[in-house]
Amino acid sequence: MCAVEKSKSLIAPQILEILQAENKDQKLRDFFSDMHPYDIFVLCEDLGDAEITECIKALGVPHGIDVFEYFDDDRREEIFNCFSREWMADILEEMDPDDRADFVKFLPKAKREEILPLVARAERLDIKKLIEYKEGTAGSILTTDYAFLPPDITVRDAIEKIKQQAFDRETIYYIYVIDSERKLLGFVTLKDMIVAPSHKMVADIMLRNLISANVNEDKEEVAKKLNDYDFLAIPIVNDLNQLVGIVTVDDVVDVVIEETTEDIYKYGAAGEYIDYLKANSFHVAKQRVIWLMLLVFVGFVSAWVLERNADLIERVVALSFFTTLLLGAGGNAGTQSSTVVIRGMATGSINLSDLQDVIRKELSVGIMVGAFMAVLVSLRALFITHGDPRLGITVGIAMIANVCLATTLGAVLPMMFKKVKLDPALMSGPFITSIVDVFSLLIYFKIAMWVF
Amino acid sequence: MCAVEKSKSLIAPQILEILQAENKDQKLRDFFSDMHPYDIFVLCEDLGDAEITECIKALGVPHGIDVFEYFDDDRREEIFNCFSREWMADILEEMDPDDRADFVKFLPKAKREEILPLVARAERLDIKKLIEYKEGTAGSILTTDYAFLPPDITVRDAIEKIKQQAFDRETIYYIYVIDSERKLLGFVTLKDMIVAPSHKMVADIMLRNLISANVNEDKEEVAKKLNDYDFLAIPIVNDLNQLVGIVTVDDVVDVVIEETTEDIYKYGAAGEYIDYLKANSFHVAKQRVIWLMLLVFVGFVSAWVLERNADLIERVVALSFFTTLLLGAGGNAGTQSSTVVIRGMATGSINLSDLQDVIRKELSVGIMVGAFMAVLVSLRALFITHGDPRLGITVGIAMIANVCLATTLGAVLPMMFKKVKLDPALMSGPFITSIVDVFSLLIYFKIAMWVF
Repeated sequence: MCAVEKSKSLIAPQILEILQAENKDQKLRDFFSDMHPYDIFVLCEDLGDAEITECIKALGVPHGIDVFEYFDDDRREEIFNCFSREWMADILEEMDPDDRADFVKFLPKAKREEILPLVARAERLDIKKLIEYKEGTAGSILTTDYAFLPPDITVRDAIEKIKQQAFDRETIYYIYVIDSERKLLGFVTLKDMIVAPSHKMVADIMLRNLISANVNEDKEEVAKKLNDYDFLAIPIVNDLNQLVGIVTVDDVVDVVIEETTEDIYKYGAAGEYIDYLKANSFHVAKQRVIWLMLLVFVGFVSAWVLERNADLIERVVALSFFTTLLLGAGGNAGTQSSTVVIRGMATGSINLSDLQDVIRKELSVGIMVGAFMAVLVSLRALFITHGDPRLGITVGIAMIANVCLATTLGAVLPMMFKKVKLDPALMSGPFITSIVDVFSLLIYFKIAMWVF
Repeated sequence: MCAVEKSKSLIAPQILEILQAENKDQKLRDFFSDMHPYDIFVLCEDLGDAEITECIKALGVPHGIDVFEYFDDDRREEIFNCFSREWMADILEEMDPDDRADFVKFLPKAKREEILPLVARAERLDIKKLIEYKEGTAGSILTTDYAFLPPDITVRDAIEKIKQQAFDRETIYYIYVIDSERKLLGFVTLKDMIVAPSHKMVADIMLRNLISANVNEDKEEVAKKLNDYDFLAIPIVNDLNQLVGIVTVDDVVDVVIEETTEDIYKYGAAGEYIDYLKANSFHVAKQRVIWLMLLVFVGFVSAWVLERNADLIERVVALSFFTTLLLGAGGNAGTQSSTVVIRGMATGSINLSDLQDVIRKELSVGIMVGAFMAVLVSLRALFITHGDPRLGITVGIAMIANVCLATTLGAVLPMMFKKVKLDPALMSGPFITSIVDVFSLLIYFKIAMWVF
């Protein structure tokens, strides 16, 4: 299965051939018949916008729109612009409400105002409502295509109602029970419904103590809730407990991936996530320079420590050969421990209450790792000084002290950040490295002063 | 909703009180009635193992087992050991097959061999089959509790059959059609079934061109497929196309999180993922020291570059004040660009074919960012040298060159790694920093040689 991706290069020319043929629409339909929209998307992905437009038109509504929805916003806009205005309205009417709102938000304002009046009233109002929700909230990812029932009908009647709703709902497996004011009363699964005796009332089989989320809740929270409870969908209500939509399980993975990307950018001090290939260089540079500047200021402190020890360096120039090595080792050891601790806190496997455990562990890891590396660098130093042990002793002791300090700071600083409600990911590799640099240099020259 | 977490500290004492009361089982059942198993888990999480055991016993089979399944393997083992052997067998019989196989694999061999003979034959065979599958494959996450139908019955009869299967299946929304040899023929959704005329045959409404995965396929691939197609479950077949189980959507998020954690560990050169709090320090140290050693060897090259320029450093000791700062800036700029590129390749937003674009972008970002920071450090140098511009010129030019080199290498090296089928995440922060260090020093002293 899924040999589709491999045979892609063979199939694209076939599609181009069909597009030249007479009666191409029918031929395209035959060609794509029985294929999943995702597979059609994969096959068409590399075609030109005009060819994709032809394929979508041939597939018609709704099958063609399902394919259209798989493209990303940029590509969708390009393809969208190849359609007539009537088709544009059709597309917007047929798309999934959550996807559609995102896409409309993405379109340039002029385009949006040109097309929206052509869209059927119900869908137009739905779009207007959904694009109002703030980015990052449950509202921004909800869909309004949910199945619902009143409480006071029998299961037999309810199944009939669900059959009628089935065609255009994102899921009919979770069905929400609402009163005449759309207030959320409970929920039934389709499984419960088909198993229940058909004369029972919906109100009698529904689950009343149901989990929901507020429309203004952080979408990450909503995704976490959906995942914790292993739900297929979660109902989203407004402050009056009126059902405004549902968030379905397929959105959870997208939210998790997006959230992790943001975290990873922080680990690398790379600023906010932006669409890298699309953004211009100036914008990228601006994103990054702020963090680099902050780090340079920490670097000034390191430079100052070196400056204060100028006499010593002048006297024993070999000391300066090892600064890079020592700071590098410290920075890397700190990056390792901060990586483990920050990710551990993000996934919930490490909590603030584990602080003492973590410190104890990082100290002993630091001693072991530091001692091992101290032997390596001391031998190297001995080689440079032709047997004079003083440099070797200095860098050896400094290495142990540095690595211990680095592993401990790398773990403690993110936890302290979390404690004071700052994002622990800010205390990742680059910052730990710069901070450790300063202390490492202080320790190194203190030891050197003492030895020489 | 979900005020459960907040009220936890208030409720735990109540549970303890009930556990002292007479007729505690009934009282516990009343207390937990209507609660979702996840909520009961959250409330009980901080209780002792013996108290949790009491709660699970009171809730009985299957409700108590649902709660038990939310604990992690370690905790499950502790709680499990508080039960009688009969209860242990009951627990294993009732758990979800995929969860159960993981848990049995986790148990010590002796325990496993003590309990397995007490488990009912069907479940015992299921466990034995599932624990055979290799870690990381579709087999290791599949469940055998799937709903299935023969092709040659009517929809009416099919719905009756599904009602019978409903109670112990992980999902009945996706139903797989198999022949007498368990070969996979097609699939129907419960939605299709309830909408279809009841006299039609299953074979006539089923989808024949269905997406499946092989039991030996990488679980990440399977998770990706499930997500790409927006399925609730995907059928898993053996080499003979016989249905052996399904992977459900709730496993996808776990796989994505696990996979990202592994990636993040690589970004931080922190070795393989291990259970940090449980692992002993020696094990953690061993994981990390390998990477640090590799990095130290790169550091030796830096030390050697410094050594070769000893005369120059001795003559202009102020040069050494700026090494840390320059290397730090280069390392951080390289970390930024490698972070963006590695994550971009992981999520599919950057491809190998974008190499030229990326190089062009990183070069211009490097020039802009480098020039900005060059001004900062040159001013600082001017301040130290009381107006002598030579040091300022040296560090300024070196800064621009370093940062350009760093941003470019930070992007190109991971892409080259991907090109030769190595993991690009290996070329993340720590390695980029160490490699950039060597080149930065070479450039810095070259410029210094020329200026002084």
